[in-house]
Amino acid sequence: MSLRVGIVGGGQLARMMIAPAVELGLDVRVLAEEPGMAAGLAATATGDYRDLETVRAFARDVDVITFDHEHVPQDVLRALVADGIAVHPGPDALFYAQDKLRMRAKLAELGMPQPEWAAISDAAELQAFLDANGGRAVVKTPRGGYDGKGVRVVSTAADAADWIEALEPGGQLLVEELVDFTRELAQQVARRPSGSWRAYPVVETVQRGGVCAEVIAPAPRAGQRLTDVAESIGVAIAEGLGVTGMLAVELFETADDRLLVNELAMRPHNSGHWSQDGAVTGQFEQHLRAVLDLPLGDTEPRAPWSVMINILGGPAADSLESRIPGALAAHPGAKVHTYGKAPRPGRKVGHVNLTGSDLDAVVSDARGVAAHFDD
Amino acid sequence: MSLRVGIVGGGQLARMMIAPAVELGLDVRVLAEEPGMAAGLAATATGDYRDLETVRAFARDVDVITFDHEHVPQDVLRALVADGIAVHPGPDALFYAQDKLRMRAKLAELGMPQPEWAAISDAAELQAFLDANGGRAVVKTPRGGYDGKGVRVVSTAADAADWIEALEPGGQLLVEELVDFTRELAQQVARRPSGSWRAYPVVETVQRGGVCAEVIAPAPRAGQRLTDVAESIGVAIAEGLGVTGMLAVELFETADDRLLVNELAMRPHNSGHWSQDGAVTGQFEQHLRAVLDLPLGDTEPRAPWSVMINILGGPAADSLESRIPGALAAHPGAKVHTYGKAPRPGRKVGHVNLTGSDLDAVVSDARGVAAHFDD
Repeated sequence: MSLRVGIVGGGQLARMMIAPAVELGLDVRVLAEEPGMAAGLAATATGDYRDLETVRAFARDVDVITFDHEHVPQDVLRALVADGIAVHPGPDALFYAQDKLRMRAKLAELGMPQPEWAAISDAAELQAFLDANGGRAVVKTPRGGYDGKGVRVVSTAADAADWIEALEPGGQLLVEELVDFTRELAQQVARRPSGSWRAYPVVETVQRGGVCAEVIAPAPRAGQRLTDVAESIGVAIAEGLGVTGMLAVELFETADDRLLVNELAMRPHNSGHWSQDGAVTGQFEQHLRAVLDLPLGDTEPRAPWSVMINILGGPAADSLESRIPGALAAHPGAKVHTYGKAPRPGRKVGHVNLTGSDLDAVVSDARGVAAHFDD
Repeated sequence: MSLRVGIVGGGQLARMMIAPAVELGLDVRVLAEEPGMAAGLAATATGDYRDLETVRAFARDVDVITFDHEHVPQDVLRALVADGIAVHPGPDALFYAQDKLRMRAKLAELGMPQPEWAAISDAAELQAFLDANGGRAVVKTPRGGYDGKGVRVVSTAADAADWIEALEPGGQLLVEELVDFTRELAQQVARRPSGSWRAYPVVETVQRGGVCAEVIAPAPRAGQRLTDVAESIGVAIAEGLGVTGMLAVELFETADDRLLVNELAMRPHNSGHWSQDGAVTGQFEQHLRAVLDLPLGDTEPRAPWSVMINILGGPAADSLESRIPGALAAHPGAKVHTYGKAPRPGRKVGHVNLTGSDLDAVVSDARGVAAHFDD
């Protein structure tokens, strides 16, 4: 009988696990939030991932539960584990992905390099942090943010007055130093429940409007020291937080050559989409192998350079599909991935991967392909 | 709205179209012969592909109909075309794939190099062919053969007496020269309805017991002349027979450096499985692009050498899945593909792909991985 993988959440990350699951011969099942989602092809159940009985019924007949996102509540996760179900990543790891304050405290405990940060609960504490850190800072809601949501740059306590006012009694916000970074990088590590791991090469990510726009793999101008430090941070976090499956560590590189941990994701991540076509083992295949505790695959690049460019929904009403012929014609090596999602403005609806040996040409060609999806 | 592809037949070739279909954002639907088939994940209908109304109902809501096999009857295919449905490959092309006698006659008309052959309807005609061709020959039933079935080496007319006796009035068998080949090769070409095409590099195939066992891509010791001749044969057949989608041409290479056409397949083919992991565009993605008349992808290898080894069901009762951990552990670059089929003896139930730059090492390593599926 095939190994059965249950994925909670029906978004594009679940969707992109379908292809490697089918090829490996896994029985892949998805608990989707609603009908017609990106991973709908493999949906065997529809329901609310916050409802224990919904998740429990879905989890009953699978060999492992994994996730499209990190939002399944702790009590649901812990009930599954108590039922004897393999859950990867598990609740102890996801605890840190679900709350940025806990994550910062744990990374401090592990001695990981990170921006200056504090937990604040009122305007005075925020102002004190601003005064101590050059007058500007980033305030984050500890929970629920993604793609730039729940993140705000402030220069006075008043800029965060609405969030402070909305705090529950005892509630806190995270405030972080506004890092003067030269660029953003991301380090991915896959780790099995039995402990072995494999690291991907560190990549450069380019964000626009808080959303990942482009990724170059490996990161250009990354010497051995940078590569080693990034990998050691990724592995230390994967091991220190007990992450199983794919971990992505978003990093700031500073002008004085430090790497500081920005965010974590305990799942396949946008910064790793290049690996589908650019690495011997794509991150979605690797995640499945990791959560099933199967031997991990080679993470070496298949080509000197890989470039990933996100396709965002635009204001135009015409469908994504009408753009595909032009995009495919633009470069015969382009790999166009689309997610079956309605192209609402700013929404990630697909991406383009391209590999090659001349970085400037790959970047330029990949942008030329992706431009077919612009308005 | 997503482009909708309907695949008739639920076997492993349909299954392996699912992954690239999902990544491209296609709406992929399968008409399976029965529940629980290899392509079951995408099955939206179950029924008999020989029944016009079954196929017609399935075809009503798709943008193109394509196939897992070549066995859909001509009257069914022609009725779909008359309904205005895009069918690729179409009935005119499949006509030649469905009957080896018609195929031989058409290839002769096109001037393609092929073994000596004849249509025979009785023992005297077969004996005459044997007498003229060194006393041994291959007799084939024109229809329904695959993986060595419907093929028999004979040295007297009596060896085929049962087949001759079973002929319907006016029926014929194909008899072919027993080619003294040095090796077998295969040439694949993708062709769009609008006429443009892309050829894959010619590959070497190793058959055991009439079943493809190993493929090496590109074919070792293949000079420019061999490569060019193989490609020109593939393209001439694709154009001459009006093939749309993937065409595979199985070839004999002879001691005097001739290439002779052995068999044709108008669909993705076992000889092209290497391309899933070894070419910029895998044959299953390419087939989908071709039948949808989308721009074709680059067919260049991603590595100097790719090796594909089939996994056949063995006598052991234990499941394929129990072998996967050992196989994956044997080489971190190995790509194990399994088809979700019960591992009956001799049945193709999966394959292993491996790429690298040292051919001997790739062959040896790939065999080491595949050996985990032996008894």
